[in-house]
Amino acid sequence: MKNRVVLAYSGGLDTSVAIPYLGKMLDADVVAVSLDLGQGGEDMDSVRQRALDCGAVEAVVVDAKDEFAEDYCLPTVKANGMYMKQYPLVSAISRPLIVNHLVQAAKEHGGTHVAHGCTGKGNDQVRFEVGFMDTAPELEIVAPARDYAWTRDKAIAFAEEVKLPIEQSEKSPFSIDQNVWGRAVETGFLEDLWNPPTKDLYSYTEDPSLSAAPDELIISFEAGRPVAIDGRKVTMLQAIEELNRRAGAQGIGRLDMVEDRLVGIKSREVYEAPGAIALITAHEALEDVTLERELARYKRLVEARWSEEVYDGLWFGPLKRSLDAFIESTQEHVTGDIRMVLHAGKITVNGRRSSHSLYDFNLATYDTGDTFDQTLAKGFVQLHGLSSKIANRRDREAR
Amino acid sequence: MKNRVVLAYSGGLDTSVAIPYLGKMLDADVVAVSLDLGQGGEDMDSVRQRALDCGAVEAVVVDAKDEFAEDYCLPTVKANGMYMKQYPLVSAISRPLIVNHLVQAAKEHGGTHVAHGCTGKGNDQVRFEVGFMDTAPELEIVAPARDYAWTRDKAIAFAEEVKLPIEQSEKSPFSIDQNVWGRAVETGFLEDLWNPPTKDLYSYTEDPSLSAAPDELIISFEAGRPVAIDGRKVTMLQAIEELNRRAGAQGIGRLDMVEDRLVGIKSREVYEAPGAIALITAHEALEDVTLERELARYKRLVEARWSEEVYDGLWFGPLKRSLDAFIESTQEHVTGDIRMVLHAGKITVNGRRSSHSLYDFNLATYDTGDTFDQTLAKGFVQLHGLSSKIANRRDREAR
Amino acid sequence: MKNRVVLAYSGGLDTSVAIPYLGKMLDADVVAVSLDLGQGGEDMDSVRQRALDCGAVEAVVVDAKDEFAEDYCLPTVKANGMYMKQYPLVSAISRPLIVNHLVQAAKEHGGTHVAHGCTGKGNDQVRFEVGFMDTAPELEIVAPARDYAWTRDKAIAFAEEVKLPIEQSEKSPFSIDQNVWGRAVETGFLEDLWNPPTKDLYSYTEDPSLSAAPDELIISFEAGRPVAIDGRKVTMLQAIEELNRRAGAQGIGRLDMVEDRLVGIKSREVYEAPGAIALITAHEALEDVTLERELARYKRLVEARWSEEVYDGLWFGPLKRSLDAFIESTQEHVTGDIRMVLHAGKITVNGRRSSHSLYDFNLATYDTGDTFDQTLAKGFVQLHGLSSKIANRRDREAR
Amino acid sequence: MKNRVVLAYSGGLDTSVAIPYLGKMLDADVVAVSLDLGQGGEDMDSVRQRALDCGAVEAVVVDAKDEFAEDYCLPTVKANGMYMKQYPLVSAISRPLIVNHLVQAAKEHGGTHVAHGCTGKGNDQVRFEVGFMDTAPELEIVAPARDYAWTRDKAIAFAEEVKLPIEQSEKSPFSIDQNVWGRAVETGFLEDLWNPPTKDLYSYTEDPSLSAAPDELIISFEAGRPVAIDGRKVTMLQAIEELNRRAGAQGIGRLDMVEDRLVGIKSREVYEAPGAIALITAHEALEDVTLERELARYKRLVEARWSEEVYDGLWFGPLKRSLDAFIESTQEHVTGDIRMVLHAGKITVNGRRSSHSLYDFNLATYDTGDTFDQTLAKGFVQLHGLSSKIANRRDREAR
Repeated sequence: MKNRVVLAYSGGLDTSVAIPYLGKMLDADVVAVSLDLGQGGEDMDSVRQRALDCGAVEAVVVDAKDEFAEDYCLPTVKANGMYMKQYPLVSAISRPLIVNHLVQAAKEHGGTHVAHGCTGKGNDQVRFEVGFMDTAPELEIVAPARDYAWTRDKAIAFAEEVKLPIEQSEKSPFSIDQNVWGRAVETGFLEDLWNPPTKDLYSYTEDPSLSAAPDELIISFEAGRPVAIDGRKVTMLQAIEELNRRAGAQGIGRLDMVEDRLVGIKSREVYEAPGAIALITAHEALEDVTLERELARYKRLVEARWSEEVYDGLWFGPLKRSLDAFIESTQEHVTGDIRMVLHAGKITVNGRRSSHSLYDFNLATYDTGDTFDQTLAKGFVQLHGLSSKIANRRDREAR
Repeated sequence: MKNRVVLAYSGGLDTSVAIPYLGKMLDADVVAVSLDLGQGGEDMDSVRQRALDCGAVEAVVVDAKDEFAEDYCLPTVKANGMYMKQYPLVSAISRPLIVNHLVQAAKEHGGTHVAHGCTGKGNDQVRFEVGFMDTAPELEIVAPARDYAWTRDKAIAFAEEVKLPIEQSEKSPFSIDQNVWGRAVETGFLEDLWNPPTKDLYSYTEDPSLSAAPDELIISFEAGRPVAIDGRKVTMLQAIEELNRRAGAQGIGRLDMVEDRLVGIKSREVYEAPGAIALITAHEALEDVTLERELARYKRLVEARWSEEVYDGLWFGPLKRSLDAFIESTQEHVTGDIRMVLHAGKITVNGRRSSHSLYDFNLATYDTGDTFDQTLAKGFVQLHGLSSKIANRRDREAR
Repeated sequence: MKNRVVLAYSGGLDTSVAIPYLGKMLDADVVAVSLDLGQGGEDMDSVRQRALDCGAVEAVVVDAKDEFAEDYCLPTVKANGMYMKQYPLVSAISRPLIVNHLVQAAKEHGGTHVAHGCTGKGNDQVRFEVGFMDTAPELEIVAPARDYAWTRDKAIAFAEEVKLPIEQSEKSPFSIDQNVWGRAVETGFLEDLWNPPTKDLYSYTEDPSLSAAPDELIISFEAGRPVAIDGRKVTMLQAIEELNRRAGAQGIGRLDMVEDRLVGIKSREVYEAPGAIALITAHEALEDVTLERELARYKRLVEARWSEEVYDGLWFGPLKRSLDAFIESTQEHVTGDIRMVLHAGKITVNGRRSSHSLYDFNLATYDTGDTFDQTLAKGFVQLHGLSSKIANRRDREAR
Repeated sequence: MKNRVVLAYSGGLDTSVAIPYLGKMLDADVVAVSLDLGQGGEDMDSVRQRALDCGAVEAVVVDAKDEFAEDYCLPTVKANGMYMKQYPLVSAISRPLIVNHLVQAAKEHGGTHVAHGCTGKGNDQVRFEVGFMDTAPELEIVAPARDYAWTRDKAIAFAEEVKLPIEQSEKSPFSIDQNVWGRAVETGFLEDLWNPPTKDLYSYTEDPSLSAAPDELIISFEAGRPVAIDGRKVTMLQAIEELNRRAGAQGIGRLDMVEDRLVGIKSREVYEAPGAIALITAHEALEDVTLERELARYKRLVEARWSEEVYDGLWFGPLKRSLDAFIESTQEHVTGDIRMVLHAGKITVNGRRSSHSLYDFNLATYDTGDTFDQTLAKGFVQLHGLSSKIANRRDREAR
């Protein structure tokens, strides 16, 4: 029986050429699967048509924006998911969703192989392939860019050879991955770490130094989920979209970092994630009010590990799932409002209120109404410090 | 023999009145110790004279600015010390230094007691007293505000009773602690978490929305220590002071947070720490370039624990010292330059260069010169994901 | 209205005398609550009668053995709960159960106070009182031994004064706490750390050097719970009891340790916990077969923190509950059989089988049938070690 | 120029055949390097001669026993290094030492390649190769068993073909790696996890059920290093050797475990490590007396990570070195004597004494001399539990 390759299809040159190329190399029919994750750009019907024009036997288009927001972005908010304390996992959380849709398409269309366009030195190949291994190990995996040492020049030559009906755009200097949760940009001149980013890198955010009047808003959460902005109910997707717009207008969410890739190298990355950063900032501020101290301290450790697991392509791994159970159990009372000001690249939280607050005015106040019994402190201090006191005494005596 | 109390003396009303009050309550001579930690304000000679006027038998003044910068602020930079990921431990790191100077004064002046002005519901009492227990457990500790249920009204009444030669200023609505590393403000109306801070709270920073033209600068580090700004050599103290000035002018370093106190309550705190935030931001960016991935991941956990230990008053504790050993061992190669733009409340790192960099252009580049062998990736991905693959297969089969 | 004190009543001298003593000191009626946690000894009816004879207005007796096994011992097995890697939390997990029953009795009998017999330098006061604060903060807490500086001599004198109808046994040299999960012994001569325990300390275990023929058995688990021994179905309570008997006969479960108490001191403790140690040993061995590597590595960290929280009296704390959520999520597949030999103080696991095993014979074998593709290893090794290789190269060059 | 391969040479069939085989495959001279790590068996001169007989151009023999004990076993004691809480890293710590000696031989003898005999599914290939990458990346690595799909049958056939002067012993059913720190055994029938180990597996330990009279001994440590046994001074090597003998005679140190390999599979392993287990047990017991609580709690986390890094082949990695800095800083006061009884497979610590002890009799005792101020406890308990109390109150109200 003929092979059937299910290809993650973006509509760009590389994956377009991959359709006939994979067909030839694997003696296969190709099914193209394209997902709308809110990346904008071309409409999905055109993408679908191009896949067919390039020879795909099927071309599947899925609007996965809400699913992405609900099942991937929301858990990232609950986990305050930031790799290296900075990067909100923009591409990392989209890969497992794409895996799920490719596997589903393979089941529906009799796929024997799955294919993706990633290179062999990035993280995304790992995220795709471990995802396939975890969810559908019976499918064979092909990565033409890596496995056939595919390059852009080869792709163009092949496109001409097979007279592929695609316009050959001028090579963009940027390598871009984007979705509603954010946008990742790599480009040659950033490979010199001393070069600053240039303005033309950005698309989701305005120049912060040109930002308009400050924008104050209130984000309301219920059990860790953003449910309203300025009192208007929102879905998770709407929350991200509105904050992309409003925080983006203020130049918020630009990141320029040197990142530790899973494959062992450091790389320079520029990201834009205005909505993600705004939501996580608000969520953290609300947790500061609603999570008990020891739980909050431990959750920060769990968040770091969660972020590493997701970054490292282990979304479907057993540890990730148990970390999720921990995180989910912490969110019951993360309910309330955060008021914040967006301006000139910066988010300033300046108000919190919550019916689930752990802040106790009467214990905290230094004014009338103080109910804190200060006489308790002496005993606390003495026993809190006792083991250290004994150790320091020993250290002096032992010298 | 008469008791002799060594008092941490700020020059303010409360500790001024404490001089005769402690003298009376403990039948004691009082030695006042005042430290210049870069808090600005009144000159130290006036402070000293006021202590004597209030009846101190000795009044010691110490310029501890450089010592504070070297021995307390620098380790905080190396540790990227931020409690709850936000607060650079402004007051927390000053307490152990004050403890050391009070203990030294007690040794020189025959002190039998040490006294501080903290209340019984804050963190600073713990930091002072555990510090005394650790370094000089033979000294008795007195905290009049807590142990004698001292209040401002009682202090004023007593001051009038004993005709203390101090002007009774109008009660400031603010409770302030400041030093060269930053400034902490508490005030009644912030005890409602929904109230935003007002402009008059701030002193180290300008309003970020009014900030001047962006200020680009280069901070150079050697082995984790800032050694130059824009090519000019600086001491640690000078680095903090210059960045307080330049980052402060851009409205950088304002923090408004709800904090988990060691004594078990949450409190609202406003901080300003422009120099601290600028230095730690630059230091983290340089570590991203110079620390290996696994070391960097683990160091972030160590940093969180270090910050908790210091926040919790355990500066002299054995765990803090061993965490220091870990941290110090990571700093050998944290050498290089960070270029960043300060503007409108925000720091943007936009360049890094280091002769100790772990960034390898030839491994990272997607252009000519790429030396990364992509054929290695397939095996890596398969074995990286193997244990998760087996677990997912088991999960499916076990259902 | 008269006060009503609900007292944790053991039947011993101290708590017997506490009945009239608390009645007098607090002008209160006393309700005695006694729990059967499998501690053995006197029958509970006699205990109840003695409470009434001593003047209690009510005396409640509860058989809580099954509840203790199910709700406290089983979670400890799932958590492999061992404080300092050694102590299976014998007393620590009984306190929250006692708290719950005292609070329930207070609700049923109109209690205003709760009382326990612990001293002020142990852990159990903390576990009791934090438990009361967490679950019924409206109840006032009394600890006569601590709050009234109660001593045994005072207790005896008071007993004679009020002509209490109890025989005054000779003072035992041992201070003992025991339940079905284990037994804790403190005694004066062990306070010299160089003294070995004597044979008369032990009650749950035989001398291991005299143990009989080896006893081989099979413990079966389902989702982390022991469900059968040698093929016979058991409840959790029965599992503990049978293993107490069989492992105890082999001298298994004796612990002699120096322990870090929450109140800041170190203390010497001797424990016996044959059933607990046998169950946790078997459970860990089964987890080695059924938990994926990264999950298992992280769970060990979570276990250590869980044990500290429980030891530190924070059973009802928010962090403990979220750690439980993590742990529970790991147990789904901890199903299978562990065969082990009990002999001469030692447990030797020598067989495992599980329909949920992650052990894959075909991947592991070096014989015929090997399906492991060794060609994958080279790429794995190269990228696994790449970041370390780059760092070591930098280190050499930077010197 | 001709290639020159430096081969880790054990003297066994596989590496003997590798000499001519590598010579042929790589057109190379072969330098054989053999290390005495206390593995016993054949004398090293015979090993050396066999290498030459097989065609090695050089055969280097190094007595590395003391170096191994000092630089690899001692750090493992200080780290209480146990992978999965059980395995004292017997093979894992020997690989970096062998790497160092191979690299040194390569420098002295002009080596261009290094070769080892490991397969592609074990951990040791990773430890060897990451070690080479870290210390001498210019050397090419060859692993004939993996890279040339070498099998025993092929080896024997080739040995006959080239008339290799070695006796072809009957194939042992065991695959063994041993050194003074312990012994690892794999064998076919253990690949069924339900099969118990058989008696003929063991060599370093007697059958515990047949063990002689209990053996009581005292191990003395200075700063974490064992320095005397029963009062007689010992080097680190002597300490291991004596305890191998005495603990081995009591059947101590047998391990039967299912292990998580770095390459993603689980495997069944049987180990013997009587000296290692005895030393680590004693060291832990002494740390219980001499390390402060918070330091001890954190050190246990560091130990787990250290063990994982070493197991995973990252001995030369930057994280391992910084963990060493932490651990080393904890050992200053780990000085004192541990008395323990070895018997029937079990170690029982029954006495500790230390001039650096943190145990304070006067604080711990319940008898005359008690200096613990119990009135401090109430305040401690209240503030220790306050954040949990507030959280529980919120939970009730929020429902």
